[in-house]
Amino acid sequence: MSDAICTREYACFGGTVGYYEHPSQTCQTTMRFSVYRPSRRGPVPVLYFLSGLTCTEENFMVKAGAQRYAAEYGLMLVVPDTSPRETNTPGESDAWDLGTGAGFYVNATQAPWQKHYQMYSYVVNELPALIAQSFSIQSSAGICGHSMGGHGALVCGLRNRDRYRSISALAPIAAPMQCPWGKKALTQYLGSDQTTWHDYDASQLVLTHSDERPILIDQGAEDEFLTQGQLLPEVFKKACQQTGQPLTLRMHPGYDHSYYFIATVIGDHIRHHAKALGAV
Amino acid sequence: MSDAICTREYACFGGTVGYYEHPSQTCQTTMRFSVYRPSRRGPVPVLYFLSGLTCTEENFMVKAGAQRYAAEYGLMLVVPDTSPRETNTPGESDAWDLGTGAGFYVNATQAPWQKHYQMYSYVVNELPALIAQSFSIQSSAGICGHSMGGHGALVCGLRNRDRYRSISALAPIAAPMQCPWGKKALTQYLGSDQTTWHDYDASQLVLTHSDERPILIDQGAEDEFLTQGQLLPEVFKKACQQTGQPLTLRMHPGYDHSYYFIATVIGDHIRHHAKALGAV
Repeated sequence: MSDAICTREYACFGGTVGYYEHPSQTCQTTMRFSVYRPSRRGPVPVLYFLSGLTCTEENFMVKAGAQRYAAEYGLMLVVPDTSPRETNTPGESDAWDLGTGAGFYVNATQAPWQKHYQMYSYVVNELPALIAQSFSIQSSAGICGHSMGGHGALVCGLRNRDRYRSISALAPIAAPMQCPWGKKALTQYLGSDQTTWHDYDASQLVLTHSDERPILIDQGAEDEFLTQGQLLPEVFKKACQQTGQPLTLRMHPGYDHSYYFIATVIGDHIRHHAKALGAV
Repeated sequence: MSDAICTREYACFGGTVGYYEHPSQTCQTTMRFSVYRPSRRGPVPVLYFLSGLTCTEENFMVKAGAQRYAAEYGLMLVVPDTSPRETNTPGESDAWDLGTGAGFYVNATQAPWQKHYQMYSYVVNELPALIAQSFSIQSSAGICGHSMGGHGALVCGLRNRDRYRSISALAPIAAPMQCPWGKKALTQYLGSDQTTWHDYDASQLVLTHSDERPILIDQGAEDEFLTQGQLLPEVFKKACQQTGQPLTLRMHPGYDHSYYFIATVIGDHIRHHAKALGAV
């Protein structure tokens, strides 16, 4: 495995924010990610954060204010980009909700996406192996995300109990098979046979993959995408109730889908993971 | 005085981030500012934050993570834009360190700037009057800023003891008469007679306007603009020592000029002001 190259680095809350790139075997192109390393010495637990549509590896590090809490609990934050970029895949830049910035954390099986758009395997396998090789970390990890990244966190988390001790999501696309964003992306990346979509729909997955890990979800009640039926947390909640999956779903009156909402609740999420990862 | 219009609003840490615009009599054009209102009821103290070169009223609200602390102490944050914009002033968009995004918090006396570039009076007089008319606030206020805005905070603060109970700055341009950015801007806005510059140079002003208010300054030791001689905190420190002005100047090894630095120390600044404003 090739090493990641640090392209820029900033001191922050006693630790360091670093931006990295590396040649990805999984995505067959250069991939980028960011890391916050706390000042705490010795191996630290890792929290992966998956970002939403249009984001890069930078948005969360700049806007969420998460470093303060990660510093407090001694957690490393790892934030991958949301897709491969500049791969010359036909149509990759035609829409903001497909292709570039919109990898949806799936392994594409359909042309023209299948060569590069392997974000599920990238996030679950290649990136953690690279992080383990590059930094002093504990084996325990948590996974969190926002919107499309909330979907990714629920899917990666539920399908990989051995890899993630804790799962949470902010305003996730919680039932992608039933919402316009999800239907569009899953059709393009996976094809029209919807049986292949189940592995990437948290509300389906939890019916067969429920376990004892408590899931935390925060959702703004005035989120325009909630109103538009893109997020559907109630579908996920019902599935959790059906199968006994512990879930805390908190609705926040007045809050929307923005980073002002993320900044407001991210402290609670980092505490949720810190507790599960033995960092509290 | 015309009312300010709220153009967009976001829930954040129990309060509200709002973006406003209004016709400014002082700057003879539309001016913009942002406000964070904490959830605390009744009149609240106000902290003004002046931003650096190229910033708008948005950068600080998005990147600094200040709302968490303002919510904690029940402070309102008010963040003006850094200059008039789109005024058709010749050359206003030719350089990033002059004109648009670079008002330097002075009242320009020279053509072509003198019609619109009246940022000192705007920040010290018109904006506070508008804020008092528009929101439920206490009369006590503090002033803080970063880089060019740190210069602005020191100058506005030192010259207006009756208006600001507390002053602080992050990586301020602390002796603009002696640095390239300051010389360029002051020459353009005020002309070549340097006696007119004294009123806008904190290291000069403190010699005649020192008082008992303790000033807090934080500075990254690896700040590239410190190395380039644009900031000169040691000149300001020497002037404070000469005149007995209480100053805490903290150098932070490893930190640069970025918002990662601002986010790291802004909590201490908000506490500094909250204490002086009786909010702790």
